[in-house]
Amino acid sequence: MFFASDNTSGVHPKILEALSQANDGFAPAYGADSYTSALQERLRDIFDAPDARIYPMTSGTGANAALLAAMTPPWGVIYCHKTAHIEMDERGAAGFYAGGAKLKALPSKDSRIDPNALRAEIMADANGNDIHAMPPAAVSLTNITEFGELYSPVQIAELANVSGLPLHFDGARFANAIAASKISPWEMTRELSTLSLGATKTGAMAAEAAVLFDPALVEAFESQRMRGGHNLSKARFVSAQILAWLENDLWLELATHANAMAARLAAGLVDLGGSLSYSVDGNMVFATLPRAMHARAKAKGAIYHLWGTDTALIGDPETPQMARFVASWSTTPAHVDALLAAFEP
Amino acid sequence: MFFASDNTSGVHPKILEALSQANDGFAPAYGADSYTSALQERLRDIFDAPDARIYPMTSGTGANAALLAAMTPPWGVIYCHKTAHIEMDERGAAGFYAGGAKLKALPSKDSRIDPNALRAEIMADANGNDIHAMPPAAVSLTNITEFGELYSPVQIAELANVSGLPLHFDGARFANAIAASKISPWEMTRELSTLSLGATKTGAMAAEAAVLFDPALVEAFESQRMRGGHNLSKARFVSAQILAWLENDLWLELATHANAMAARLAAGLVDLGGSLSYSVDGNMVFATLPRAMHARAKAKGAIYHLWGTDTALIGDPETPQMARFVASWSTTPAHVDALLAAFEP
Amino acid sequence: MFFASDNTSGVHPKILEALSQANDGFAPAYGADSYTSALQERLRDIFDAPDARIYPMTSGTGANAALLAAMTPPWGVIYCHKTAHIEMDERGAAGFYAGGAKLKALPSKDSRIDPNALRAEIMADANGNDIHAMPPAAVSLTNITEFGELYSPVQIAELANVSGLPLHFDGARFANAIAASKISPWEMTRELSTLSLGATKTGAMAAEAAVLFDPALVEAFESQRMRGGHNLSKARFVSAQILAWLENDLWLELATHANAMAARLAAGLVDLGGSLSYSVDGNMVFATLPRAMHARAKAKGAIYHLWGTDTALIGDPETPQMARFVASWSTTPAHVDALLAAFEP
Amino acid sequence: MFFASDNTSGVHPKILEALSQANDGFAPAYGADSYTSALQERLRDIFDAPDARIYPMTSGTGANAALLAAMTPPWGVIYCHKTAHIEMDERGAAGFYAGGAKLKALPSKDSRIDPNALRAEIMADANGNDIHAMPPAAVSLTNITEFGELYSPVQIAELANVSGLPLHFDGARFANAIAASKISPWEMTRELSTLSLGATKTGAMAAEAAVLFDPALVEAFESQRMRGGHNLSKARFVSAQILAWLENDLWLELATHANAMAARLAAGLVDLGGSLSYSVDGNMVFATLPRAMHARAKAKGAIYHLWGTDTALIGDPETPQMARFVASWSTTPAHVDALLAAFEP
Repeated sequence: MFFASDNTSGVHPKILEALSQANDGFAPAYGADSYTSALQERLRDIFDAPDARIYPMTSGTGANAALLAAMTPPWGVIYCHKTAHIEMDERGAAGFYAGGAKLKALPSKDSRIDPNALRAEIMADANGNDIHAMPPAAVSLTNITEFGELYSPVQIAELANVSGLPLHFDGARFANAIAASKISPWEMTRELSTLSLGATKTGAMAAEAAVLFDPALVEAFESQRMRGGHNLSKARFVSAQILAWLENDLWLELATHANAMAARLAAGLVDLGGSLSYSVDGNMVFATLPRAMHARAKAKGAIYHLWGTDTALIGDPETPQMARFVASWSTTPAHVDALLAAFEP
Repeated sequence: MFFASDNTSGVHPKILEALSQANDGFAPAYGADSYTSALQERLRDIFDAPDARIYPMTSGTGANAALLAAMTPPWGVIYCHKTAHIEMDERGAAGFYAGGAKLKALPSKDSRIDPNALRAEIMADANGNDIHAMPPAAVSLTNITEFGELYSPVQIAELANVSGLPLHFDGARFANAIAASKISPWEMTRELSTLSLGATKTGAMAAEAAVLFDPALVEAFESQRMRGGHNLSKARFVSAQILAWLENDLWLELATHANAMAARLAAGLVDLGGSLSYSVDGNMVFATLPRAMHARAKAKGAIYHLWGTDTALIGDPETPQMARFVASWSTTPAHVDALLAAFEP
Repeated sequence: MFFASDNTSGVHPKILEALSQANDGFAPAYGADSYTSALQERLRDIFDAPDARIYPMTSGTGANAALLAAMTPPWGVIYCHKTAHIEMDERGAAGFYAGGAKLKALPSKDSRIDPNALRAEIMADANGNDIHAMPPAAVSLTNITEFGELYSPVQIAELANVSGLPLHFDGARFANAIAASKISPWEMTRELSTLSLGATKTGAMAAEAAVLFDPALVEAFESQRMRGGHNLSKARFVSAQILAWLENDLWLELATHANAMAARLAAGLVDLGGSLSYSVDGNMVFATLPRAMHARAKAKGAIYHLWGTDTALIGDPETPQMARFVASWSTTPAHVDALLAAFEP
Repeated sequence: MFFASDNTSGVHPKILEALSQANDGFAPAYGADSYTSALQERLRDIFDAPDARIYPMTSGTGANAALLAAMTPPWGVIYCHKTAHIEMDERGAAGFYAGGAKLKALPSKDSRIDPNALRAEIMADANGNDIHAMPPAAVSLTNITEFGELYSPVQIAELANVSGLPLHFDGARFANAIAASKISPWEMTRELSTLSLGATKTGAMAAEAAVLFDPALVEAFESQRMRGGHNLSKARFVSAQILAWLENDLWLELATHANAMAARLAAGLVDLGGSLSYSVDGNMVFATLPRAMHARAKAKGAIYHLWGTDTALIGDPETPQMARFVASWSTTPAHVDALLAAFEP
């Protein structure tokens, strides 16, 4: 009953096998190998972006930080949602890489950036182009969001229009977003300057592709990636993972499955009397259940995160408490059903 | 009719004269002079802080940034109000000096930090001591605030208690705060780790004293001050300004005067039908007046800032628009009355 | 004929197999898994360091930078050799992570730090403890060095004594150093504060262990690693690589083999009339040969780096030109002999 | 007998008087005042640089660091002499402002950068434009150097040509250089991108002009200056100092005098048997004298710096020891003669 994170899942067998196949004698280091070239061609094709530059990496945090640092001067503002991974979970990586740039974290009624709030903040910050203020530099979106919600292309275009700023996508669960939306990767990304395309959470071992749609960012990004320690020597083994992940749309198959497992879980939780805190668009479920039900499931070995401050589950057993449940490519219907059963008396 | 900022005022004659007196031949550089020693003794006495360390500087931004950088690791969070100078007006200086640390800017119903909001943010950030999150490190207050409001010692103590964190004071208008509260400097500062004591806005030329109540911060602060370029060679001329400013309570005399001019102006604006947006505790007035009145005053040469986005004053002349008016040590009743007259038809 | 770098080699089969074995369902992320625990115990045992803290990483540059940043304040000096990887090949990673700290690169007659030069620099920098200067903070050694030379424990102890500073080891080729010296890992490291233990160049895919012998550095290191993007989610797959690498002393077997291949190559080059520029202690050979011989070998497909500026091989064919040859765990005697043959007419 | 530094001198009466004159009521803050405009016009004229941008500051370290940070990416290399102030005396300010950029400090037989050494370093660093290396970005010269030696325009042009990089001048003693060379400020600076023009050491209180000959650097420089805390509110009082300093060539008069005092001292020291360690081109004398003579002068109250490590003057009284003597605008012939007399028995 592992629902703590998609990070706790293992590696899909086809991706493991690709590592063996890539282990074919000597190959040039630092991305000059044929796997990395092939990956670049493959992703250019998928995104219909013939000038895009692709860099294999092993860390989503590293990819986000190096990309954002290429998109802002050290005195710029990067707008994101209050719940963004770059704001909450990367110990200040973006501000560190970008030499002191500011993340401005916007609240909203859900987990997506509100266009009106974004417009208002940017107008206030840009006011008069005053040397005392930090000027607007970029916007970072997460799709699906950290609370499992999807941005549509229309919503993305609106944020691009409203802001007038280059967009970065944290795509740690990009596959889940594409699987959920059933649109093409191109349609999802046509407004973007950069994308962190994460394969790790969806079946790879440690593999992210940093995608630069804007070639003007190459020198800054490559420099930040290098001095961040993210230009790996045996890069072929990262690229090979992503190639296998893309082959025959394995990535979408795995994401579609994970999304379905989350939907099954969400339906079951509602049946049990739980309420959903956010829409379940991808592979994550945020649901509120009485403390007593959490206590029961935890006692039976269910592993997931209680969200917020009431992790001790002390007091009135009927008080509701929100929790996060994440399904992965390796979550089975049986896993889901076992978890649902654990909530029952 | 100069009400744009207390920065536009000149230097009090006694402070100018002190510069001449300090110009007595050779003196050791970098603060090893007798003026700087005397300043340290004087401020230790005023703050009843025998272990405090005092550093003359010429920049409030420099003092704030070097102090805050000594109070946080590069991955820490500094809490401040949404309107704080360090958040709005220093182009990211604190995050720069502190190597990527985050300013978390809190909203409130006025211009002071709300203790409950502060507690909630700190609890959320400290939750579980997770390596992914940025841990709480310090709180920065401004007294009087950027909107002219006073914190009382009781309010300051509450923020200290609620946060459990070391406190920094941006004291750009510290003299106005002491003059307004009529309490001793000691009583105002007894909860603090550090203070930027600003004399520039209250009659000096360019003089701030960085005060370290916590001697454990000395090495980090001195290093940040030095590499920030704020360890001035002919430091005697900075210290001499502050000594003259303190002598015979000139600082309080000047601040009391500026506060009185603001009160006079506030009363006059209310008489004219304006409404006050914040309490007028010190030398700043934020008041809302119809666009037509602003247009009239501006046309007659009044100099002050319209606040927010409606600086063009276009449209319905009766629509109210907020403005900021700052009185200084050199503002006279005649200046105030001339400004008030300028609003009349 | 791949002698450009040990980075161009693949992954040893036992390490690949270990990845499959580690792929056993769900496991806690971010190093809370059993593989990472086992790795910590194993390395504590190998280094006879029961309090050491071990962190799996995928990047030597990342490990070096995060470790060094934990050992110096932003205004400190880190001493290294002029040829060190941190000085020459990491695009300023250490200075970046450490917030502006300085690498001071020392020349010497070989590729090891000269104790007298180190003492002289430290004395000069520490002179008077002046706030204007950057104070000495740490020393970084590379063993074997970037030019293939070994430091003995006596030499390491001398640098520790002479400097009085904490020592960092760049152990990208630590296995080659242990294999060459035939001493225990403990004996090699007993003077160290920190070690980057690199497995990648010696048969792993992407695996380094950051070793903190000094537990006082834990908070700073963990923070720098996290905000650098080097706290990987599926850490078990990094730890599993290193565990397999250590098992039954596979690491020493592979390093001993690589060292032997370098010795075979060095002997052959001398037989061909080449001269060795540095002592061949590990798996790297720096040798000088006439331009004509290089041209011949290159034309036959030999892959290795000409060192310095004469990479065009233009002019008098008898002029000698230095080159670097690196043997790896997968280099065979036949590879060596083929390369040697390629130099002959 | 104050010869420790020109920093220990006071302020010239005409500059003090200019402060009083500038104290004429209200004036716009942050450099929007008429004094700062006039300063910009005056310096554009002096340097025959109609597009130059001028910024008054109070700190040479701040000016150097903000200028250099505008001239290099965070991963670039700035070349300077081993004895440069930015390398030795600013606690890493340039690397801090520039986000981790490297100062590469070159040795030479005197205190000037050797063109051949510069060319060699740049060629090595630029080799192959490798992403692993830090690329060459800028060169910083000090004129007169930290050891009192002058660069001629021919020498400066040679460094510009050899390097192909933008040049920065640390002009802390620029007046002494112009006075010594008897060439125009234009001729001295025509190869420069930026200049820190220091008035403090030559009679001002705290006044430096940052000069941007290259307008492309404006945004980066203004941002770095602002977030460094060097955009002073009452800027008119800094600009007024420099205007008075320039008026009727007061700056050259004061520098010529200081240089003459140094020459008088140098001649006297030679007469006493001392030997000069560097050429005495400006207002600094580096001379070697027997320990016994130093001990004598120190006992009689002479204040100057023994240079290097033998500051205790222990051992054989005839052993020579180098010292630094700095003359200032306020040094008189009587001061010099008193110092010379102090060395005699």
